[in-house]
Amino acid sequence: MSEYINSEKDCSIRVSPGDRGIIEVIDQRYLPFKQEVFSITSLEDTFFAITEMVVRGAPLIGVTAAFGMYLALRNNGQSNLNSVEYAAAYLNASRPTAVNLFLATQRMLEVFDEKRSREENLEHFFREAVLIREEEISSCRRIGEVGLPLIEAIWQQKQPEPVQILTHCNAGWLACVKYGTATAPMYFAHEKGIPLHVWVDETRPRNQGARLTAYELGLAGIPHTIIPDNAGGHIMQHKMVDLVLAGSDRTTLNGDVANKIGTYLKALAAFDNHIPFYAALPSTSIDWALEDGIRNIPVEERSQEEVATIEGWDGTNITSLRLIPENSAVRNFGFDVTPARLVTGLITERGICSASREGILQLFPEKFNQNPLAKANGNV
Amino acid sequence: MSEYINSEKDCSIRVSPGDRGIIEVIDQRYLPFKQEVFSITSLEDTFFAITEMVVRGAPLIGVTAAFGMYLALRNNGQSNLNSVEYAAAYLNASRPTAVNLFLATQRMLEVFDEKRSREENLEHFFREAVLIREEEISSCRRIGEVGLPLIEAIWQQKQPEPVQILTHCNAGWLACVKYGTATAPMYFAHEKGIPLHVWVDETRPRNQGARLTAYELGLAGIPHTIIPDNAGGHIMQHKMVDLVLAGSDRTTLNGDVANKIGTYLKALAAFDNHIPFYAALPSTSIDWALEDGIRNIPVEERSQEEVATIEGWDGTNITSLRLIPENSAVRNFGFDVTPARLVTGLITERGICSASREGILQLFPEKFNQNPLAKANGNV
Repeated sequence: MSEYINSEKDCSIRVSPGDRGIIEVIDQRYLPFKQEVFSITSLEDTFFAITEMVVRGAPLIGVTAAFGMYLALRNNGQSNLNSVEYAAAYLNASRPTAVNLFLATQRMLEVFDEKRSREENLEHFFREAVLIREEEISSCRRIGEVGLPLIEAIWQQKQPEPVQILTHCNAGWLACVKYGTATAPMYFAHEKGIPLHVWVDETRPRNQGARLTAYELGLAGIPHTIIPDNAGGHIMQHKMVDLVLAGSDRTTLNGDVANKIGTYLKALAAFDNHIPFYAALPSTSIDWALEDGIRNIPVEERSQEEVATIEGWDGTNITSLRLIPENSAVRNFGFDVTPARLVTGLITERGICSASREGILQLFPEKFNQNPLAKANGNV
Repeated sequence: MSEYINSEKDCSIRVSPGDRGIIEVIDQRYLPFKQEVFSITSLEDTFFAITEMVVRGAPLIGVTAAFGMYLALRNNGQSNLNSVEYAAAYLNASRPTAVNLFLATQRMLEVFDEKRSREENLEHFFREAVLIREEEISSCRRIGEVGLPLIEAIWQQKQPEPVQILTHCNAGWLACVKYGTATAPMYFAHEKGIPLHVWVDETRPRNQGARLTAYELGLAGIPHTIIPDNAGGHIMQHKMVDLVLAGSDRTTLNGDVANKIGTYLKALAAFDNHIPFYAALPSTSIDWALEDGIRNIPVEERSQEEVATIEGWDGTNITSLRLIPENSAVRNFGFDVTPARLVTGLITERGICSASREGILQLFPEKFNQNPLAKANGNV
């Protein structure tokens, strides 16, 4: 692919080119209204960045935490197991539901060897954090390559009209490191010169679509239109969408897809209008121990403030306004589960499969041998 | 029914008790943050109230316009046909898509008789405006009485658990005069002592659910919870909804229901989870000349500002914030069409019928004889 795709452009996190002691991230609290780089130079900075949502998105949180472990060791005179275990435990408390966070700190711990010198451990830590970052990039790159033919096939059919894609929330590089998951096939298609137009769901209550996905697509020069979450059904009914591409926070063995609240409604509309609905996900987000996502995935309830108020730009600052009557109750479910029957396919780093036990088995046979639940119930 | 139901409490418009020259409306621009009465005393006030959305909702706009015609005559020394025709034309330009507006001004014009004295015409105008208001109230009261048994039946099944209803946008008395359409059965059930809980969709972009429906239900003491528009699918999937009640801006002969954008998505989720979905509507909103709502109802596109920005309360004032990147495009479809196959039934002032030509025919046989399209294609 071209320069853009392989460049360090449009990454959410990097090591400062001049200084290994500075990790630079895009400060996502202010997007799209202010574009600022936030420099992380310590364990405490890392904790702050994760807690205050300077960085968000499971893969990016994992990578940030890995670099945080490295910075802790770098700044710390001591280099015993206790001190790195402390750093891991401290970071693990920053966003208690983020699996990638625990996986990243655990992986860093496993790299540490008390028998080595502090300098040697530091070098190993740096390399491991860089590796975790590169693995995230490479996994999203593969999702882009694997998903591209879906867009190409639509383009073959309808050219010269642009391919119309609808996406929900932000499953872009701001949540990952580069390319993103649901957005990766879009970036690859755009790079190949296929004309696209993306419908971006606003994604209340936190508006990650209107704020982050729209910002990303704008940077890349991909034509896009922001719509209220309510509008997706209407535009699908009127054949204004060729393909729905969403991310996934967690996918079960059966192909049920947990993703940002509202995804299920868009999958229903896609199904009702014979429009393909794909979830793009790294296989690390498949939960090999779960079958029925609707019954078994617990849905996080988030702060009522996210619904009762809204953040926006007043021309000078980001501020917030109250939206509801004083005495009205609010509930704020973080995600929903789209049943596999509504999912046309899963786009993973190993290829596309049907959203079913059989489909997932074909791409990831080793997982079915490793996992007791998968083995016991599957037709392996 | 009791005092509340038959009182003048919770009406959106009334003649000032002390002065026939003052029409009092609730100023809906500031709800729920400020509760203010706006006094209309002239044709110009009426135009302002409609244009600036002091009043909104098709039935309320019609009633307001009728009183505006009366006020024009009252304030005007002249009492010839020209002057009242001028008033009608002037008001008709205030909200060009509101059918009820044209019907109301037309009806007032028909009452005018140049042979009568100015005082006689004024009295006729006053009575006609009061009558139009009373007809709106009575139509909504009937919808409440007709819809009540649906809620009673659910209550019989699940008591002592409260009946869980989901509603979208504002089809309440703030859009009508009293009771509302979708809300009328709720008010009647609440008055009868049936425990209810109502899920109120926020209803972006204008947030009529979070601002108006929540306010109405709060005043009546009906327990309710505001949710983002994205959440309805999830709560239906988890059996937290027994009944969906929506309004309708326009219903076709076939039973297709045009309503606020996002209604179709909720109807899909209700259908997928075997939850009844009813549209409540006065028969005046049935379009006897249309069959296929998806093909034939033109969908209004509204201002991009409604999506790009949001209004809320900063603690002192109502103000607005920008929500999206500077260069992102926006589209803002005003409503969508829910196909009849997803609609369990229509709640009208004459009774409940299936959302089909046959169902509508049974309740309104005379309309099928009057209307060439209905007659030509129907099995009358």
